[in-house]
Amino acid sequence: MDVNIRKLRDSTAYWMKKDGPLSHIIISSRIRLARNIKNIPFPFRATDEQLLTVIEKVEKILKENKEFYGFQIIKLDNLSPVEIEFLVEKRLISFTLARFSKPYRGILYNTDETMSIMINEEDHFRLQSMLPGFQLKKVWEIINYYDDKIEKEIKYAFNEKEGFLTCCPTNAGTGLRASVMLHLPGLIISNKISESINTIIKQGYAVRGFYGEGTEFQGNLFQISNQVTLGLSEEDIINRLEISIKQLIEKEQKAREKLIIQAKHKIEDQVMRSYGILTNAKIITTAEALNLLSYVRFGIEMGIIARIGYDVINRLMLIVQPGYLQLIKGQNMKKMQRDTVRAELIKEILD
Amino acid sequence: MDVNIRKLRDSTAYWMKKDGPLSHIIISSRIRLARNIKNIPFPFRATDEQLLTVIEKVEKILKENKEFYGFQIIKLDNLSPVEIEFLVEKRLISFTLARFSKPYRGILYNTDETMSIMINEEDHFRLQSMLPGFQLKKVWEIINYYDDKIEKEIKYAFNEKEGFLTCCPTNAGTGLRASVMLHLPGLIISNKISESINTIIKQGYAVRGFYGEGTEFQGNLFQISNQVTLGLSEEDIINRLEISIKQLIEKEQKAREKLIIQAKHKIEDQVMRSYGILTNAKIITTAEALNLLSYVRFGIEMGIIARIGYDVINRLMLIVQPGYLQLIKGQNMKKMQRDTVRAELIKEILD
Repeated sequence: MDVNIRKLRDSTAYWMKKDGPLSHIIISSRIRLARNIKNIPFPFRATDEQLLTVIEKVEKILKENKEFYGFQIIKLDNLSPVEIEFLVEKRLISFTLARFSKPYRGILYNTDETMSIMINEEDHFRLQSMLPGFQLKKVWEIINYYDDKIEKEIKYAFNEKEGFLTCCPTNAGTGLRASVMLHLPGLIISNKISESINTIIKQGYAVRGFYGEGTEFQGNLFQISNQVTLGLSEEDIINRLEISIKQLIEKEQKAREKLIIQAKHKIEDQVMRSYGILTNAKIITTAEALNLLSYVRFGIEMGIIARIGYDVINRLMLIVQPGYLQLIKGQNMKKMQRDTVRAELIKEILD
Repeated sequence: MDVNIRKLRDSTAYWMKKDGPLSHIIISSRIRLARNIKNIPFPFRATDEQLLTVIEKVEKILKENKEFYGFQIIKLDNLSPVEIEFLVEKRLISFTLARFSKPYRGILYNTDETMSIMINEEDHFRLQSMLPGFQLKKVWEIINYYDDKIEKEIKYAFNEKEGFLTCCPTNAGTGLRASVMLHLPGLIISNKISESINTIIKQGYAVRGFYGEGTEFQGNLFQISNQVTLGLSEEDIINRLEISIKQLIEKEQKAREKLIIQAKHKIEDQVMRSYGILTNAKIITTAEALNLLSYVRFGIEMGIIARIGYDVINRLMLIVQPGYLQLIKGQNMKKMQRDTVRAELIKEILD
């Protein structure tokens, strides 16, 4: 196993282990910036040599700038399929990077995973910063700081009219996508989720599941992000998204307050049954685990369960995934074996 | 609350608290004898005075015979509906006795509930003996002993041709009904239960649920009893029933052995999930509790759960019932409250 993968397996990202503002509804806030180097074709069109140049430039920055002292680089070419799956599950890399068939793909990240850069994805660089709870402005400060550092070393593809140039035109301009991961069991149980989601979509935002684009909704988790990257300043994009998210938080809050009055016992029952199954089952799929963990998290959010922290649930929501599980056990496993090992692991951590 | 009801509430019947032969499949063995006093009409036709005579005769026997020193008598006329429901749930009295609208109904029983006599049900006396596990012959010895004692004091309605006379002609002859309560999760899970039950029915036996005649199957429990009471000796009835039950035990045993080979993990999962729900749910109905308890019992039978005894499950299967619950709490409760109190009680006992 790659030594850095091993370290990542055993460490916990900051966004998972610490609470943030409104952690009882918001899991995490994330911003990514798409950047490309001037005069090098986008990765899909670049030659292997050009892709190598991109990664070498990153390695140079890493060596020569004290701001990057705490960072590590992992080159995907050296990894097994399970290790790559693990990085996707950890939300450090995208499906696109995982599946890209060209060489010299990489990921640069600091130890608490608050800041990372995908190398040679759709764009040369995809900077990403992520914090727990609802704090997009703080995330923006971090990513902006590193973006400035890189810009001092590398000439970005940029022009006054279109802003930052990107492989996909929908990312051009700021190249910024801000997203927030929300836990909305209250709206789900009250059958108000479709209505709330439709409002968000009408406001021009994208709504996605736990794993991002094209994935199903699992564990009552929703990722909401801006679609428009052009014609607005970074601050405007973030401010507008914040307003919409605040409306959604309020709806979820109201739904929960109503549930506590009208269906306290039923909620407690649902939460405790979920906990009971998680701590006793011998076979459990990823999808079931995520849904049950969502209810346990809801129990924490509602004050029904006190002795488990959000950090435990966040960590469990990651390690129940197939790649993570196989890394932990250090072996490839078939579905049935994974379902058994997953059940053991959940029991161990929750007990 | 009636003082004897309180004692019954706080004590546990011998058949519930001790294991018997083949306790891993057979819950209990029971025999009842229908008896009537010569020259007194059957209870449906008797006057109040005649019914009083019947119960007075029992009280006389109780006082004057050392064999009945350990027995208590409860007169149903003094009981609340919940107390009567409780006696049905405890299997000391039948629905028929509970619902009979005439006075002077009663139940005579010894403290470990191995022997009891319903007074003024369909027949003047319904003797009943019950032991844990598969031991009909031992049950027969006990009930026969008490039947002989009573016969010395009372002239039974009997003639050489028809044997003992009973209210319902289907009981005439020996007046004997032997029944065995079986726990058959193996056949249920393997989808072989209908076939097995049909064989038993074709052999001339009746198959009933947990509460006897006209009740649904719950908790994978089946009561099997003889239909024919006339033209065979008591020993023949018991021997023949034993043979059929042994065939059924063998089928259940085979089904379990096959499951352990083919679906060990799935069974463990089902058992442990049931345990997890029982020890965590906040709301639980009687039917769900019985089904989950059945799986926990199956776990004990299969060696999956070691720290819980059959006595605990047997006791739980009784006290989850509505009447028992209300007696324990000393108050009438609506369904929702019962479902909540039931969940608390199960958790308390299993923890």
